[in-house]
Order: sequence, then structure tokens, then C-alpha cells
Amino acid sequence: MSHSPGAVPRITGRTRLFAVLGDPVRQVRAPEMLNPVFAELGLDAVLVPVHAPAAHLGEVVRGLQRAANVDGLLVTVPHKAAARAFADVLSPAVRLAGGTNVLRRGGDGRWYAENFDGVGFVAGLVAAGHPPAGRSVTLVGAGGAGGAIAAALVLAGVARLDVVDLDPARVRALLDRLSDHAPGVVRHSPPATAGKADIVVNATPLGLRDDDPLPFDPARLGPGTLVADVIMTPPETRLLRTASALGLPVHPGAHMLSRQLDLYREFFDLHPTEQAG
Amino acid sequence: MSHSPGAVPRITGRTRLFAVLGDPVRQVRAPEMLNPVFAELGLDAVLVPVHAPAAHLGEVVRGLQRAANVDGLLVTVPHKAAARAFADVLSPAVRLAGGTNVLRRGGDGRWYAENFDGVGFVAGLVAAGHPPAGRSVTLVGAGGAGGAIAAALVLAGVARLDVVDLDPARVRALLDRLSDHAPGVVRHSPPATAGKADIVVNATPLGLRDDDPLPFDPARLGPGTLVADVIMTPPETRLLRTASALGLPVHPGAHMLSRQLDLYREFFDLHPTEQAG
Repeated sequence: MSHSPGAVPRITGRTRLFAVLGDPVRQVRAPEMLNPVFAELGLDAVLVPVHAPAAHLGEVVRGLQRAANVDGLLVTVPHKAAARAFADVLSPAVRLAGGTNVLRRGGDGRWYAENFDGVGFVAGLVAAGHPPAGRSVTLVGAGGAGGAIAAALVLAGVARLDVVDLDPARVRALLDRLSDHAPGVVRHSPPATAGKADIVVNATPLGLRDDDPLPFDPARLGPGTLVADVIMTPPETRLLRTASALGLPVHPGAHMLSRQLDLYREFFDLHPTEQAG
Repeated sequence: MSHSPGAVPRITGRTRLFAVLGDPVRQVRAPEMLNPVFAELGLDAVLVPVHAPAAHLGEVVRGLQRAANVDGLLVTVPHKAAARAFADVLSPAVRLAGGTNVLRRGGDGRWYAENFDGVGFVAGLVAAGHPPAGRSVTLVGAGGAGGAIAAALVLAGVARLDVVDLDPARVRALLDRLSDHAPGVVRHSPPATAGKADIVVNATPLGLRDDDPLPFDPARLGPGTLVADVIMTPPETRLLRTASALGLPVHPGAHMLSRQLDLYREFFDLHPTEQAG
């Protein structure tokens, strides 16, 4: 509940608004990453966290969309699938992933949904020296983030993608969406398949709290298996700590967001103002 | 659309939110006044402007109230009367004024409405050397701000209050609310009464835009009549410029808000955190 008293937000009645919606929302990193981008570009805009309880997501989103100075919404766990309903136009990535992580108000007044989670995650893997092409990946969690990551991994050319999720209908919908793109590559698998993967990804919300159960047991993975997480706060989840202690390479969630910054800039049409240095 | 690139808001997922609602909203001064207070107190909180079109006020307010990290709402033109409907508990000042300019989420989850416009306006007059007690005042505009100012002027002991407004039902409702407190002091009057007043107050939104018509003609006022405005942006409205050019003393709208800062601090229960300097 405290921060540096010197850091006074320069916000006026003319400031444009962006919000990042989650439940919980305290773990989001987007304000710390995007507000410096706005400042760097000389844009009078601010991104604030909005804690939208799942039961009231519709009211919160519609209220923000009705506010005439709100230009865009970022969406995180657990709202990525549900937030599609509040867009007028879905991108191909959203349709393939089954969820959206970002919406913007277009010049025509319509709301456009995109999803950069998958491409951001894959770019993060590549940048960290773990290109997924040709590898065998187990993805735990087929929700909003999981769906986006599954789509991007398939498009990136993984040899095999095992999806572990307790909701068969959700996995079936994901397989249906992806089947045209890589027949036979993706299957719904039991947790034990993680033991044979090159890369295992946690795309569930487990790990936001340190007393959450682990999404899978790193002790059952083969040596050298990369353990990746989508959780951004804490930066090192208990899953990653446990995997590191076992000598396994790990890939934290921050990479997924940091690789999305340029995509956000383009999507929100953020350009330097004349006054920017 | 631009500001100093150096002023990066320090906003995280844990930041608490306050919003100021108006239509338009670009003229509000509250973010520039309250955000430094948050910073000074070491509070991780931010006040942002929210442009709520009148037709969608309910959706915008309900959406913000459903967001679990929104702690309070400030309300400005033209929403002060309508915003009462979104509070669970109305203060005596709200009932007397007929409008609210500030709502907070209580520890019990209920929303409490207050109105500090009137007491803020009167305190501003007193601080500027224009105590209204015993004076004759003409108030132009019986809307949200006007109702609050009327109530506070009556409680401050004005000798006579002439209310000028084109909506007789609105004035009648105001007179009904105030009649118990000062029988015979307040009346619904034609614009010409301003000529006999010691103080004339613009409590309409006219003046937010420089090409708005004047709410009344300062040329018809007697010498020495104080011309007061509730408009905060521009700091000097065309009304005040015209009055000054005629040699009349003027009282700008900024006083009303600056006198409310301590009241907001108390109402929102803002206290220094341990980490504050």
C-alpha cells in the first residue's frame, strides 16, 4: 500500500485510459511495463489495474467500454476466454486461441480483440535459446493463456503437443480449433506424459499464490526438461524454484509479456507525439 | 495528448483506484490535486479521469463499483444529481443539496455518498475575504453544484438567496429541501435580480467552453458585486474575464476544490503509511 512519495503520476482530465483486468489483479506486471512506454512516447495515457471479479466481468468491461476516454483493455487470468464476448471483431489469433488478451476501441467505435500471448510466449522461448520447433511439449492448462500458447506452438512447428487439462470439453474445443493446422500433432493427454516432454509449460493460474498446489510434479520429469511458467508474479513461482532445485532449466513468465510490448504498441497505434524527445 | 516523458506513474497491480466522473471530463482538476496527496501520504493509489456520457452513467458507475480495487468516485458536471442513485447511504449534505460529488466504498461493502461542494465553496469565499453571512446572493443554476452551494449558503447565514434556473421543478425541489432551514430566505427569481445582489454565482456548466454563452450579463450588475464561478477549467472563464474588465471583483472556481482536499482525506480515510517520509 506504499510507494515512493516522489513518483507522482502526471494525470489530468485529458489523460487517456487503459486498464488491465484480472481476478486477482495484484500480480499483473503490465502497468509497470506499459506506463514507461507511454511516457517514452510522450503520450498522455495511463494503464491501471482493475480487479474484475469473474461474477461481474460483464459489468466491469461494459462500464469501461462506455467510458469515452478508455482506449484499450488488457485481459488476464481468468478472463481471457470470457472477454471475447465483449469484442465486436475477433482476430484470427483470438479465434484460434479461444481467448483474447487485449481489446482496443477502433476509430469506428467497434472493439477489436487480439491475442498476443501465444506469439509472445514463443518469441520468449526463442529469445531464451529454447526454440520449440521440432520439440515435444506438454502444456498444462487449456484455458485462456493455454489456448493461445497451444495455437502458437503448433504454428511454430512443434513435433508433438500434449495438452493436460481436467476439462475434456475445453480440450476438445482446443483440438477442434487447431486440427486444420497440424493434424495429429495435438492430443489430450494424462499428466504422466510430461515425463517424456522436452518442454513442460504451466499455463494454469496455479502459482500466483505460494501455497497453491504445484500444477505438475517436476520430480517426475526427465533430466534437461525445460520447465516454463506463464505466471509473472511472483517472478519465480514455487514450480520454478522446485524445478531449479532439481537441476532442471526454467523459463519464467516475464518473457511472455516483455516480448509483447512491441505488439501492443502497434495494436494500440501508439506513436511518439511531436513533443516527445 | 502529451506530457513530460519523465513523469512515469508508479502504478502496479496492487494500486488502489479512484475515478472522477464527468461529461466532459477534460476540465477536471482533481487528478492534479489528489494524486500528489496520495504520494505525499505514501499511499499506493491513483485518481484517473473517466469520461462517462450521461446516457451511460449507470453502466460506468456500476462497472467501477464492481471492480474490487476501486475505493472511491468523485462526481462532477452533469452527474451530481444522478449519481445519488448509485449510493447505498446518503449523507445529510447530499439530501439537502440534492446531489453528491463524492462516493466511497465502506468497510461494510456499501457505498456512501457525500457532498463537499457547498462547504468547499463557502470556505473558499471566506478564505478569499468574502464571507457570505448577511449578504444577498444570486445563484445561477440549481443543478448538482448549485444545489450544494445553495444549501451551504443558507447554512452559512445569507440574508437572501435568489435562485435563477430555467427548470421550475428543479428549483421547487431545492426550495422544499431548504425551507426548514431558513424560511423565506430562498426564492426562485428572474435573472434581473442579479443586479441587486452582493454576490452572483455561476453554478451552471456554461464557461467550460470559451464559446459558451455567458450564464448572466456582468454589465447589468451593480458596482462592487462579486462574480463567482464554479468552473475550474479554464481557470478564468469568459464570465470572469468580462466581469474583471468591467472592474468587478471575481472569485474563480479553483477555490471550491482546493478547500475540499482535507475533507476528501478524511472521507476516504487517507492516512500516511509507515513508509511515508
